[in-house]
Amino acid sequence: VANLLLALQPWEHEDFLPPTLRKRLESLPFDITTISPSALDSNAWEKILHDIKPEVLVSCWSTHQLPIDTPVSNEPSSLKYVCHLAGSVKKLVPRPLIERGLSVSNWGSAVSRTIAECALLLTLSALRRTSHWAIAMHRDGKWKDKSEVVTESLFGRSVGIHGFGRIAQQLVPLLRPFGVSISAYEPGMPDKTFIQQDVARCNSLEELFSHHDIVIELAAYTSENHHVISEALLSRIRPGGIFVNVGRGAVVDELALIRVAQQGVLQVALDVYEVEPLPQDSPLRGLPNVTLLPHIAGPTKDRRRDAGELALLNLERYVNKQPLDAEVTVEVYDRTS
Amino acid sequence: VANLLLALQPWEHEDFLPPTLRKRLESLPFDITTISPSALDSNAWEKILHDIKPEVLVSCWSTHQLPIDTPVSNEPSSLKYVCHLAGSVKKLVPRPLIERGLSVSNWGSAVSRTIAECALLLTLSALRRTSHWAIAMHRDGKWKDKSEVVTESLFGRSVGIHGFGRIAQQLVPLLRPFGVSISAYEPGMPDKTFIQQDVARCNSLEELFSHHDIVIELAAYTSENHHVISEALLSRIRPGGIFVNVGRGAVVDELALIRVAQQGVLQVALDVYEVEPLPQDSPLRGLPNVTLLPHIAGPTKDRRRDAGELALLNLERYVNKQPLDAEVTVEVYDRTS
Repeated sequence: VANLLLALQPWEHEDFLPPTLRKRLESLPFDITTISPSALDSNAWEKILHDIKPEVLVSCWSTHQLPIDTPVSNEPSSLKYVCHLAGSVKKLVPRPLIERGLSVSNWGSAVSRTIAECALLLTLSALRRTSHWAIAMHRDGKWKDKSEVVTESLFGRSVGIHGFGRIAQQLVPLLRPFGVSISAYEPGMPDKTFIQQDVARCNSLEELFSHHDIVIELAAYTSENHHVISEALLSRIRPGGIFVNVGRGAVVDELALIRVAQQGVLQVALDVYEVEPLPQDSPLRGLPNVTLLPHIAGPTKDRRRDAGELALLNLERYVNKQPLDAEVTVEVYDRTS
Repeated sequence: VANLLLALQPWEHEDFLPPTLRKRLESLPFDITTISPSALDSNAWEKILHDIKPEVLVSCWSTHQLPIDTPVSNEPSSLKYVCHLAGSVKKLVPRPLIERGLSVSNWGSAVSRTIAECALLLTLSALRRTSHWAIAMHRDGKWKDKSEVVTESLFGRSVGIHGFGRIAQQLVPLLRPFGVSISAYEPGMPDKTFIQQDVARCNSLEELFSHHDIVIELAAYTSENHHVISEALLSRIRPGGIFVNVGRGAVVDELALIRVAQQGVLQVALDVYEVEPLPQDSPLRGLPNVTLLPHIAGPTKDRRRDAGELALLNLERYVNKQPLDAEVTVEVYDRTS
């Protein structure tokens, strides 16, 4: 029986592996050890890897602080499969281990729809100025002045999306009932994908930012994408337009975004930032035309079990020597943040 | 040529009758007089009605303060048609005038979709606690604690709607991409309408509030509906559930709602209240599990032209002696708030 190390904090366990999934895990031919990574320093973590010699590691967000690139990995390693419940494995798994044959999987597209949902929510919120009203109604005792209040609808708008990966593709069906026209910019994506989704292809970021009422940032972060959203691009959005970022903070030149936001002409709605946590003195805080969330786009607490479900399917595939779903190959590793 | 009196404030004119619609109006065989109702007292208003003797009155929100039930209406009245750009005509048109043959139309279902959009927005906002984050991020310099933050998704939920009129029926397609199951309670609505929309029929409010994660209030206000949403009903929503009101404030026993909200177990999201403006000292203000908007569900500023478009079609029908759309008959008058 192979050893399986479950390195999760109790709340991660509860959210990602609720009782029905935990039962399915226990029915698999593994000798399971459960630890809470937050209680460990790197020495204790190294000793656990050495003593338990796991063949399979089930990891999550809090395992990031305990990378498996320890001296132990210089021994002939017992570890054959890292089943990561969350997204990015870069802090946990060093690239050479994947090159040498370690299998790694993550949540793939299991949670993409909840991030798409947050993109829709931030768009609707910016159009209605709900962030302004939350503060005005709760803190400042206000009511509207009917002749002055500005509210806008998503119906009939044009939406441009930077990036056309899993999340953007899950956003499209959420936008459709609003009768919007949708375009996207993602140079590497084949025409077929655009045609299947009935989304127009943009040929440049300049086109994307010039021709849409609403621009939604969903591009993956790569070295070429660093700060690619510049002041010149942001200024192309028509006055009264909307810029939403639920992708990666560093794709945007945040100082440029702050300057544009301070002009008060655009509505800006952000879930991600260049530096997280967002500094207390960030000029983004307090701007009336800016909606802020603390990087909570996804997955929501109630849908983390979708990532757990995918992990269970993968552990079952691993036991049956079938190919894994959402495998993090070297190519995927290099492409993701 | 018949006299047409356009009684609108400049901002109403701009929103409801932008230049293309104004041009169409000017091409019709009317002698048009434009006045701003806010500048008038009731004597001046009466004099205008007497002097202009309009056959057609185009009215909007701000005309409410100047009802057409003046002594002038005891004369054989010139007025044959009130083309109301907004919804409720009850403050403007006394019922006997409709009985005596005055034609009245309103915005019908032209703006229902924007109110449905706000219902979706409030639902998604309550699930993600965006009102809490707006205040925490902008006013209190906060960031999340990953192990404590609660976020929820609409995907896979059950939604119950009180009322199944135009707005609720426009809400259904906005909810569909989230794979929710939808039920509604509206005793007077024929089964056919439920079947066409693939919405389950609830047979009581008790059933509606007991069996759904999310309850959305969209019922029209009638004397039988007054305070029908009681503490007993609200307490039936499962812990962690959501109550949204974008319908009418007085359908809900607001003191009961306040008591339930203060327990902190439900998420509550409101656009309407028993007393509007919402009093400064309302206990609803400041509750962390309550999302508040100042009655802005609809129509949004950018879509008021949809109501203008319908009004123009009706004015064209009036000229051509064709039946009006969205006519406010005595039956409609009695049914609406």
